[in-house]
Parts: sequence; C-alpha cells; structure tokens
Amino acid sequence: MITLTSDFGLKDSYVAEMKGVIMSINPYATIIDITHEINKFDIKMGAFILTSATNYFPKGSIHVAVVDPGVGTDRRSLLVQTKKSFFVGPDNGILSLAAQNQGIEHIYQIENPKFIRTNVSSTFHGRDVFASVAAHLDKGVEPKFFGPEISNLINPEFTKTVKKNDGIIGEVLHIDNFGNIITNIKMQELFEIEKVKVRISNQQFELVLARTYGQVKTQHPLALIGSHNFLEIAVNQGNAAKKYNIKIDDEVEVTPV
Amino acid sequence: MITLTSDFGLKDSYVAEMKGVIMSINPYATIIDITHEINKFDIKMGAFILTSATNYFPKGSIHVAVVDPGVGTDRRSLLVQTKKSFFVGPDNGILSLAAQNQGIEHIYQIENPKFIRTNVSSTFHGRDVFASVAAHLDKGVEPKFFGPEISNLINPEFTKTVKKNDGIIGEVLHIDNFGNIITNIKMQELFEIEKVKVRISNQQFELVLARTYGQVKTQHPLALIGSHNFLEIAVNQGNAAKKYNIKIDDEVEVTPV
Amino acid sequence: MITLTSDFGLKDSYVAEMKGVIMSINPYATIIDITHEINKFDIKMGAFILTSATNYFPKGSIHVAVVDPGVGTDRRSLLVQTKKSFFVGPDNGILSLAAQNQGIEHIYQIENPKFIRTNVSSTFHGRDVFASVAAHLDKGVEPKFFGPEISNLINPEFTKTVKKNDGIIGEVLHIDNFGNIITNIKMQELFEIEKVKVRISNQQFELVLARTYGQVKTQHPLALIGSHNFLEIAVNQGNAAKKYNIKIDDEVEVTPV
Repeated sequence: MITLTSDFGLKDSYVAEMKGVIMSINPYATIIDITHEINKFDIKMGAFILTSATNYFPKGSIHVAVVDPGVGTDRRSLLVQTKKSFFVGPDNGILSLAAQNQGIEHIYQIENPKFIRTNVSSTFHGRDVFASVAAHLDKGVEPKFFGPEISNLINPEFTKTVKKNDGIIGEVLHIDNFGNIITNIKMQELFEIEKVKVRISNQQFELVLARTYGQVKTQHPLALIGSHNFLEIAVNQGNAAKKYNIKIDDEVEVTPV
Repeated sequence: MITLTSDFGLKDSYVAEMKGVIMSINPYATIIDITHEINKFDIKMGAFILTSATNYFPKGSIHVAVVDPGVGTDRRSLLVQTKKSFFVGPDNGILSLAAQNQGIEHIYQIENPKFIRTNVSSTFHGRDVFASVAAHLDKGVEPKFFGPEISNLINPEFTKTVKKNDGIIGEVLHIDNFGNIITNIKMQELFEIEKVKVRISNQQFELVLARTYGQVKTQHPLALIGSHNFLEIAVNQGNAAKKYNIKIDDEVEVTPV
Repeated sequence: MITLTSDFGLKDSYVAEMKGVIMSINPYATIIDITHEINKFDIKMGAFILTSATNYFPKGSIHVAVVDPGVGTDRRSLLVQTKKSFFVGPDNGILSLAAQNQGIEHIYQIENPKFIRTNVSSTFHGRDVFASVAAHLDKGVEPKFFGPEISNLINPEFTKTVKKNDGIIGEVLHIDNFGNIITNIKMQELFEIEKVKVRISNQQFELVLARTYGQVKTQHPLALIGSHNFLEIAVNQGNAAKKYNIKIDDEVEVTPV
C-alpha cells in the first residue's frame, strides 16, 4: 500500500500524475491519499499530519510525502526504512518526525537512475523520483538497490515544551478543520487534573479539562486531550481558533487549578 | 466495499486515520469517499448527501457516516442492516433517511469491545469505533456479533411539503456546488406542468419547467427536475443561489401557471 | 483503470454517484480521480488538466471527463479510442486535446441504450451515460458496440503562439495552486536562452530562465520550464499570480536577452 501526502492541492493534475506514474509501474498498487492540502511549503504541518496519520497504517506501508521548496537544488532524496514501514521524500525534515516515531532502521539516498523516470523535471520530483521509487519498492525491489545507505537525515526543530513554576509552556502546533487548537503539550504532563488555566497569546481562560465536547454547553470553550494525545482547546460545536483569533505558533501556557 | 461520509474535511489526517484503521484490519478493503465536506455538524445535509449517493452503490456495500457533535456523550453507536446494504455511525439522525429509504431490517447497538479499538478516543469514534466495525463487517463478521439488536433509531424531522390552494409549500433542502437550489418538492407533485410560479423567501419568479439547462439562455433562470427527482431552481451556466441570495431552509412555494 | 475529471467539486454526492454506478456494473474497477475542481463550465481548463494528467497513465486506461454546460441538449456523447487509451465524455472540446495528443484511432457516438442507465436524467449524463459506458468498457465490451463510428469531434480553439520580431507572443494557459503562471509557450521555442524579458498584461520583467525555483532568492520571480514543458513565471516559495495580479488568458510576450 502506498500513501501520498503533499501541498499540491487537488485542483491541478500534479497528484494524478503521481498516481499515473505509480499505476504505470505497478498496476496492482493500492494508493491512499493522506492529504494534499498541507499549507504550501509548510514542512512543520506536513510532518505533524504525516506522523498523525501513518501511526494507523499497516506494517509494510510505503508513505510518500512531498512538501519540497528545495526541489531541484542539491537537497537529497530519501528512502527511510523504519521498524514498521517506509518513507519516501525530500531530505528537508518532512519525513523525520514520522520515521523516528516508528524507529529508523536504514536511510538510503535515492540515486539509482534505473528507478527514476528519465528526463526528470527539475521542479517535480514528486512525480519523477518519489512516485517512481515508491512504485518500484511496492513491486518488491529491495530498499538497498535505490542508492547508498547514509547515516543521518535533516531534523526540523520542533519546539519542545518547558516547565515553569506550576505550569507548562508550549505552542500551537496545528489548527484543524473544525477550528480546534492543538498544542504540543502531551497527555502525560496533565495527568489527573480537572481544571486548567490556559493562556494563549495574550488571552486567559479557566477551563474544564473535559473528556468530550458535550461536557460543556454549545459554543462554550473547553480543554481536552484530543485524538493524538495532545492538549486541545476547543469550543463545543464551534470554531475555537476563529472565536479567539488564535494562530499556529502562538505561545500556550497551561497551569493546573 | 466501504464508503465514507463525514464533516472532517481533507486538510487534516482524520480521514486518512480511518482508512489506515480499515486497511490494518482488512487489507483487501475497497474504500470510496462519498464526501468529507459536509458542513460541520450539519446532520440534515449529511443525511441528504448520504441518501442521494448510497442509492447508486451495489448491494452489500457498507456505508460509514460520521457527523457527530455528540461524540463521547451517551448517544448510541449503530450498525443498521437494510434490504440492500449496511450503515454504520452515530445515532443522531445521520443514518436514518438513507437506511429507511432502503428498508431497515435490523438495528444493532455497537458494544462488543472485540471489534472496537482499545483506548477509544472520546472525541474520535469515526476512527476507533465506526471504521473498525466497518472493516470487521467487510471481513465477514456477522452483524449480530457487534452488539444487541434494538428497535428504533433517532429520526430527524425533515420538513414535509404542504399543499395550499393550487400550490405546494416546501423548503430549500440543499444548495449544490453549482449554486443550484434543490427543494424538497418531488417530481410526482409537478407532473405535466409546463410553467411554474415560484416564490423563494420573498422573491417571485415565473419560470419554464425545463428538461435541461440549455432550454433557457445563458444566465437565465429556470425550474427543472434535478437528478434526484426534486424540483430545482437553477441558472443556465450560472449560480442561482448567489444571484438570488437564497439559503438552505428558505421557504419555497410553487404554483402551476 | 478508470479516471474521472469534472467540475462537480467534492461537496456534493455527484462524484460518489458516478463511482457507485461504476462499481455496480464492475465491482473490480479501479477508479482514480484526476480532479473534480475544474472551474465550473471551463472546458479549456478541463482540457489542459486532462491532457497533462492522462500523459502519465498506463496504456488501456479509460478517462472520463465531464465539464458539460450543454448536458441534455443535442450535443453528442463520445467514446474516443486513441493509440494509448479511451476517452469518454461530451462532444464539446473537453476530450479533443488529450485524445489528439495520443493519436485518435476511432470516434464513436454513444447511443446504445443497453449500456446507458434507464431513466437517464437530462442533467446528469456524467452518472447515467459516461460512468455507465466507462464501466461496461472496463468490463470488456468492445468500443464499437456503444454506437456508430463518426468522423470528427469538436475542437476548441486553443490560442497558438505567434513569433514577433525577436520574441514570442502567447497567453496564460493556467494558474496552478501554487500561483505559478503557466503560459502556452513551449520549451523548444526557448532553447539555449539564459535570460528573458517577459511582458504579461502590462507588466515588464527581466528574468533568469532558471532550472529550479531555488536559483533565485525566496520571494523573487523567475522564469522556468515547468513539468509540462511550458514556460512558467513563478516566485520562489511565493504566489506569482497573486503578487503580480495575473489572470488566465492574459497576453504574454517573451524576448530573449
């Protein structure tokens, strides 16, 4: 199974061209889209979505992720083998969080022209390099045949949380389609707390740490541990990010009450 | 075959997580998206789209629909078996119109932990309950093993049309991507009419009841029986809802001329 | 394999209804979306995207394309067999560029009621005619059984480039999701040039003809040959169309420096 993640959007033919290339090499491939609506060039968002989604896919899956502002420069092309699956994409940080999460076993630098389309476009490696490599890998080519093993990959700096007095300082990691504000503060840091004081940017809230949205009235705010185990600030049946004008990267401080 | 309908959008990893769970349980599953762009929490729109689409799918299909403002509360989780297929989702009205349309045979309340993911997130039953149940059902588990049979499900109040003098009063059910205004007035009520007076909200039209958009000039309005057998108000190659500022739930009155 | 291209969007049930019809006729069909976000009724954009994408699909693929402002009028329904694949859709120009690109072998006018749904909606041939025909074709029905062979199809007027003094005059063909401005000027016309003067609408640029976006600084403009071999004007990690307020059909003049 091959999954695809990109910032290409679905209005152009780019995603379809990748699928055409895959199906031309391996007509029996099963292709599943993770998303093609990563914000343009946003490697951090791509890494978060890729990590969240690939957690749930079966062993042996091949995950292609293309958010690639440096396409055609000398940034490397990677095939990363983990304990559970494979990741294919540019060496700019898009793959590292998801791959490390599963335990990296080998990193190969894609070089073998045999598995790359001839006349590689210098602006579309998603199609000419990564889709092609994924299809050959899916067809049974061994990882080591794609290029030399290398020892490292680029690691984006994801902000870490900091303890401060009684509280934790983190940041807004992602704002989902519902307007839920997902922070980088993990469940275990909030164990056994019932109410929290939350400061985001310059706004203060005192919130129930709820188990479900329905524990507060419609349109009321709440804190909860979301489906990826991060602290979320949400509004029951509303859009928290719009209501409180919160953006990605805003600072978040949480204190137990 | 498993179909998916939700209000999750395609920008987040939620839909992909559901697909990952399905493929992990049943690697041979065929998954088809109906839409993930139901307006957030809009059970009525979800029910209309689900009914329209599932009409056309083959016998034995499994339809998962998740528009779920009450996730994690005590609303029930359902598996509904009809004469033609299966519906899986929350008991909040999202499934009932489509299921009744096909003839309900059995309703089961999903409870068996064997077919639900361990550590169920209280905010994402789409992934941890409904996707998991659909995959096991697709793999051959009998419906009765998912939980006890129950006798009813929640029925949303969809407005009925009313006859008044010579006319019919209904409402705007849906506005599609083209801006076509789809009412809840059915074809049989308009049999053999050539021209209609239409009032929507406070606007009056006298319109040809056309067979195709091309029967009136470009950018001119017309009435016609759409592809789901409901009366539609459209503009040839234009956006009727925008042009006349019409919204869902607006009252519609139709009188033959 | 069946691909689908349309202007239906993904919010409604229309695309899912087409897939339901296909799977009902041929449960083993593999369906791949090219895009459903063609601008409404924009046959030129549909033809460009269809041509770009279908280039990369394997021999024998069946490509259904539905941008169909004349649905239900007397415009013909076509099945076009090329040297490489099949195209199914309305006779309004949407299919011709892609089909000619592959070399047309036979054109059939779809007429045989056996392969069309009964009670054809006069507004949704995508579902009742084209999806149905594609599924039967995919199942092995011979092309000639769908209707009589005909000798021509409608050819949209795509603007041709013109040579003028030292330069070439063309137009903006497409603006992609990244805001890259794709012109109708082909690679071979620009062979061995290093810098170009570009006029779009009333704006002048002197640009490097780069090989990759990364050859200029972030947010700087450049010219390059894009992944479809057309001259593109782009901004490194930015949105060129927004920055310079460029629209489809704007005139473009390119002169070597």
